[in-house]
Amino acid sequence: MKSLVYIDYQKIEWKEVEKPEIKKENEAIIKIEAFTFSHADYRPYATKNSDVSKNLIMGHEGIGIIESIGKNIKNFQVGDRVIINSIIRCNECLNCQNKNYGNCLKAGFILGTKINGTHSEYVKIPYADFNLTKINKNIKVEEAVMLSDVMSTAYDNVISKIDALNIKNAAIIGDGPISMACFLLLNMYGIAVDIYGHHDNKLQIYLDKGAKKVYNNIYDNKKTYDLLVETVGNDRGTFEFSQQLVNSGGTIITIGVFQKPVSLYLNNLWYKNITIKTGILTNNNVQQLLSLLQETKIDLTPLISKVYDKNNVINAFQEFTNKANFKIVVKL
Amino acid sequence: MKSLVYIDYQKIEWKEVEKPEIKKENEAIIKIEAFTFSHADYRPYATKNSDVSKNLIMGHEGIGIIESIGKNIKNFQVGDRVIINSIIRCNECLNCQNKNYGNCLKAGFILGTKINGTHSEYVKIPYADFNLTKINKNIKVEEAVMLSDVMSTAYDNVISKIDALNIKNAAIIGDGPISMACFLLLNMYGIAVDIYGHHDNKLQIYLDKGAKKVYNNIYDNKKTYDLLVETVGNDRGTFEFSQQLVNSGGTIITIGVFQKPVSLYLNNLWYKNITIKTGILTNNNVQQLLSLLQETKIDLTPLISKVYDKNNVINAFQEFTNKANFKIVVKL
Repeated sequence: MKSLVYIDYQKIEWKEVEKPEIKKENEAIIKIEAFTFSHADYRPYATKNSDVSKNLIMGHEGIGIIESIGKNIKNFQVGDRVIINSIIRCNECLNCQNKNYGNCLKAGFILGTKINGTHSEYVKIPYADFNLTKINKNIKVEEAVMLSDVMSTAYDNVISKIDALNIKNAAIIGDGPISMACFLLLNMYGIAVDIYGHHDNKLQIYLDKGAKKVYNNIYDNKKTYDLLVETVGNDRGTFEFSQQLVNSGGTIITIGVFQKPVSLYLNNLWYKNITIKTGILTNNNVQQLLSLLQETKIDLTPLISKVYDKNNVINAFQEFTNKANFKIVVKL
Repeated sequence: MKSLVYIDYQKIEWKEVEKPEIKKENEAIIKIEAFTFSHADYRPYATKNSDVSKNLIMGHEGIGIIESIGKNIKNFQVGDRVIINSIIRCNECLNCQNKNYGNCLKAGFILGTKINGTHSEYVKIPYADFNLTKINKNIKVEEAVMLSDVMSTAYDNVISKIDALNIKNAAIIGDGPISMACFLLLNMYGIAVDIYGHHDNKLQIYLDKGAKKVYNNIYDNKKTYDLLVETVGNDRGTFEFSQQLVNSGGTIITIGVFQKPVSLYLNNLWYKNITIKTGILTNNNVQQLLSLLQETKIDLTPLISKVYDKNNVINAFQEFTNKANFKIVVKL
């Protein structure tokens, strides 16, 4: 089969590798119909001495058709069309018992980082009974694949952690794909959303889709919000900026990835009844998101910038590194 | 009338001052039966150039009998025995509408800091309809006065912000009165609570009352908890320490007062689904606490170290500055 393999720093290849086989009773093999890229795929490519294993198949987002299953699989059959969770849960460790699946002690964020991932014609999924969601034929593959990670991140980390009906206004710090996913959901709830970003073309799309106001390269503002969603991370001062913008009684949710400690201004915030939440997705709301799609309550097309075919995987990856885009999909 | 007046740095006096009179329709005057001291009373006494006005009557905790009321008061009558909220709410500003009473835009934490307080034979309470709670004669005054602030702080900031039934273990950082108040409530819910403190005699009381384990002067530990309650503040490293002790999926609540920013280790915590909450009390659960007292579900005696009479107010204050005590009550 063909797969996108992480070779080394700034070196990836779409190349022939050995097709996986069922070896454990809880596994399933999925024939991939579509996958997409995320910043977590870019990081090993762009980082010298990454801790991601070399020669691993990349990717943690995908949908496809079940080709074969281990003999303990009860919830799925060969031929089922499924969304693959980007977070693999064992469903039995202490963190999984606490529904903190993103911190599963046996699996978690392992696809494309510890085990072969979804950027491939086939992928093997462990604990498959708990990590797949059946979908109808009438859901478009490019929309369905958004539920593996980016839309789940927005739902799990924002919508499921707030009381959306009691939030009047929100700001999203960052204008990338996760920001768009959060925006689409908050906008659906009728919350007035401002976007603080860096890219004119993307900020225009937010405006076109109903953002209240967009700010390009502005890191000083007197406006305050009930909800701040910080999606940038990487120690660029955006978490500190969020603290300037939060209302008394408000919430800051950070979805960014951080390499260093940040400053928390408890001297300003100690009495303000602020809530701060960190975290990665749980994939616990894929069914909820599917319902929103099926009932056409949400339109994911703004999130999907371009679709490529399997003859253009490397081009698709290069296009994904262009910050003017949201998500890039590859259909196999 | 006699009142405890903040004169200046390290100078307070129990002295004769003019008795307050009703001047606005929403006011009530309470004849104080008991008051107690808190760290917020100590701060102006111990701080050069405090921003608390000189010659102000101190104190924000008290209970008593209503002596007179403005003509708009609907919920109370002269003769009612009441607990006084330490946080005065106007009940109509934007923050009050959002139940963020601690950040009331017109009043808030004003007793003893902006207007004359409760360390007095009489106190005038503005917006009285919203800031008093009637109590029966069978509630002991020294227990009732704990509901003005310290028990409300513990209930509002901890119990009402967590899902107590889903918390298996908790640690409280600090061993003072607020820590004891939090301990009594968490212990009532059957949560295993460890205390990290500095005072042998107080730590022994926690153990006697059912703390799982106490740690004296230990700021390095491998144990982790579902809930951390940080009560120290004042930039002593306890908030940073709390971050070492929090479980993946856990919650840190800080009740401390901070003068400087702290370090938030998002490099360790970004993916761990942590919740951090700041804030001051709302006094929104006084009735709930009264029910616990009336149904004898909670015993506040460990919190009340000593009771003084009105001839010994200055001695009572001096005793309160002794860190071996929890709360000191003055009965008038």
